[in-house]
Amino acid sequence: MSAIKFELKHICKQTGARYGVLQTPHGSIETPIFMPVGTQASVKGLSPEELKQMKAKIILSNTYHLWMRPGAELIADAGGLHKFMNWDRPILTDSGGFQVFSLSDTRRIEEEGVHFRSHIDGSKHFLSPEKAVQIQQALGSDIMMQLDECTHYPADKTYVEKSLERTTRWLERCLKQHDNPDQQALFGIIQGGMYSDLRIQSAKEIIAFDTPGIAIGGLSVGETAAEMYEMLDALQPILPPEKPHYLMGVGTPHHLFEGVLRGIDMFDCVWPTRLGRNGACVTSIGQITVRNATYAKDFSPLDPNCDCYVCQNYTRAYIRHLIKANEMFGLRLTSYHNLYYLIDLMAQIRTAIQNDSLADLYQKFISEFDSERR
Amino acid sequence: MSAIKFELKHICKQTGARYGVLQTPHGSIETPIFMPVGTQASVKGLSPEELKQMKAKIILSNTYHLWMRPGAELIADAGGLHKFMNWDRPILTDSGGFQVFSLSDTRRIEEEGVHFRSHIDGSKHFLSPEKAVQIQQALGSDIMMQLDECTHYPADKTYVEKSLERTTRWLERCLKQHDNPDQQALFGIIQGGMYSDLRIQSAKEIIAFDTPGIAIGGLSVGETAAEMYEMLDALQPILPPEKPHYLMGVGTPHHLFEGVLRGIDMFDCVWPTRLGRNGACVTSIGQITVRNATYAKDFSPLDPNCDCYVCQNYTRAYIRHLIKANEMFGLRLTSYHNLYYLIDLMAQIRTAIQNDSLADLYQKFISEFDSERR
Repeated sequence: MSAIKFELKHICKQTGARYGVLQTPHGSIETPIFMPVGTQASVKGLSPEELKQMKAKIILSNTYHLWMRPGAELIADAGGLHKFMNWDRPILTDSGGFQVFSLSDTRRIEEEGVHFRSHIDGSKHFLSPEKAVQIQQALGSDIMMQLDECTHYPADKTYVEKSLERTTRWLERCLKQHDNPDQQALFGIIQGGMYSDLRIQSAKEIIAFDTPGIAIGGLSVGETAAEMYEMLDALQPILPPEKPHYLMGVGTPHHLFEGVLRGIDMFDCVWPTRLGRNGACVTSIGQITVRNATYAKDFSPLDPNCDCYVCQNYTRAYIRHLIKANEMFGLRLTSYHNLYYLIDLMAQIRTAIQNDSLADLYQKFISEFDSERR
Repeated sequence: MSAIKFELKHICKQTGARYGVLQTPHGSIETPIFMPVGTQASVKGLSPEELKQMKAKIILSNTYHLWMRPGAELIADAGGLHKFMNWDRPILTDSGGFQVFSLSDTRRIEEEGVHFRSHIDGSKHFLSPEKAVQIQQALGSDIMMQLDECTHYPADKTYVEKSLERTTRWLERCLKQHDNPDQQALFGIIQGGMYSDLRIQSAKEIIAFDTPGIAIGGLSVGETAAEMYEMLDALQPILPPEKPHYLMGVGTPHHLFEGVLRGIDMFDCVWPTRLGRNGACVTSIGQITVRNATYAKDFSPLDPNCDCYVCQNYTRAYIRHLIKANEMFGLRLTSYHNLYYLIDLMAQIRTAIQNDSLADLYQKFISEFDSERR
């Protein structure tokens, strides 16, 4: 029996977008869902209680970071990642591949796996498909990801083709290592760069392994929105409807809408917390850089239409003051609001799908978000 | 009518320590009390809700910092400091003098006040007794402090004498400026360096003004514990028993006990949050530097005898990991625990005073705190 179970509950008559429920060992989540990122076993500055208060139902954590520090064995000794970080809801872990390719130095990709040096201390490591699964098993996440290669953008077609085929072979090896499918699910990842035909080739190869969920990797890596949507359009007809579709690393409001409209069920992105740490916020009327002098005497909330803890209790002037004064609490407040915004937006999207009115919601969103400030 | 009212409720038969209740415009607090410090309108990394969760009843905020950034007028425009920072319980503000003397450059002390340059941008400012009151009135704190000079340690006796006499004259000017005593209380401050006779001289001069509370400044500035206790011993017989006695800037566990034993009712200190930001914690069995490698695989709580949120939910290993990985949440957890420890210790002290058993509690504290780790 698979560790997770996905039920497609409703398809929006207005748009074809999907509403579903995903059952995991740590509870059920409604989809489409946005997953906050807790890179190093902590969602930047926020407590698990705050994540629950903002109705976060699942978080993502990064295998590469946890492997390098504090180490997978230590987390296993702690009783697994859930217990280590005091989060009892579902966790999805990535494979570590993305960070190995983007953060570490001196890497060498072979059929067997990837040689690299830690970005922390320069120590040498080797990540194979088997190792990626073993580490994620030690972490005990609800959903694991296969080791894949996220090709750079732009990338030569010949290289992308060779790479996606290796990613397929790596999935096969991950699945051989994956001896606890009743406790942890493993998703395959579609690659193929910005080439529709390669995306389709990769999708067919990955889908054939019948993993309980399908991810789309290698998007939001520098391409235009149009290119991203073109890839999603190519994939939509062939993604198995009975499985959750996870678009990796994507999470701005527009991309969430456009992804949901193309059949995506799961998203994650560091964007909201990174934006927050830069003193900026996403609001229903567009993005604002609250650290700017414009907001020094602005005693209104970050977002006039938001009912989150931050917007109910603090002003732009106060948050700007905290950021200018290098007070940690300022970044807590901006990160909190930004995550709340995306989680709440997704809740609105789910309701609209169920009401067959997602196109209306998107229109309303655009008219408010893009009008005043962009 | 005074903005505050102090009632001495009980004197510990075992030690002579005082238990009382202090009524303020933002609610009552039991004394002796430890006040967390929210230097820049925020207690480092923590939310007002967390402060309430750990039973903080009153906080201190720094006039100098708020004056320099974001400015007293801005906070007045926001509706006062309580509203600005979302804290509806009592606030005590210092006069700004201490930071002017310790942080800023190019200062010149005159009878009229202090000329200094901002530590932020080097801009020129002048702080007079009148200005100190005006700023604190704009902030709207429950308890304001007079402008005083906190003399350096060590300091020449002739200088200390001249300085304390000026501090007395400054109190007189503060009181002339203080036109809302029914809304905000103003405390006088006893100075006098490490000279018992000067301390007594200062106390007599300050007490004569009949302010609703009396503070002792200029201690915990580098002197030995024995010197501090000697000064407190000299003052104890002449402090008016019907008024709250506030020992400024003092807050390690031993000093809290020793202060309470000498009739002190109020304390504040940045020590717990500063310690936390340095990756160290105060526990019932002594201080531990949780960022040290010793704790890498220690899955026990920070303090085995603590029932705070942090100790109930997180391990030393997790907190160490967060600190090593530069995750903000780690410093939130250490600061939370450290503040909780001191607030809870004070609650135990108040109970022991009421039960006439403070000497027993102190003995127990010492045997546990000083045995294992120091």
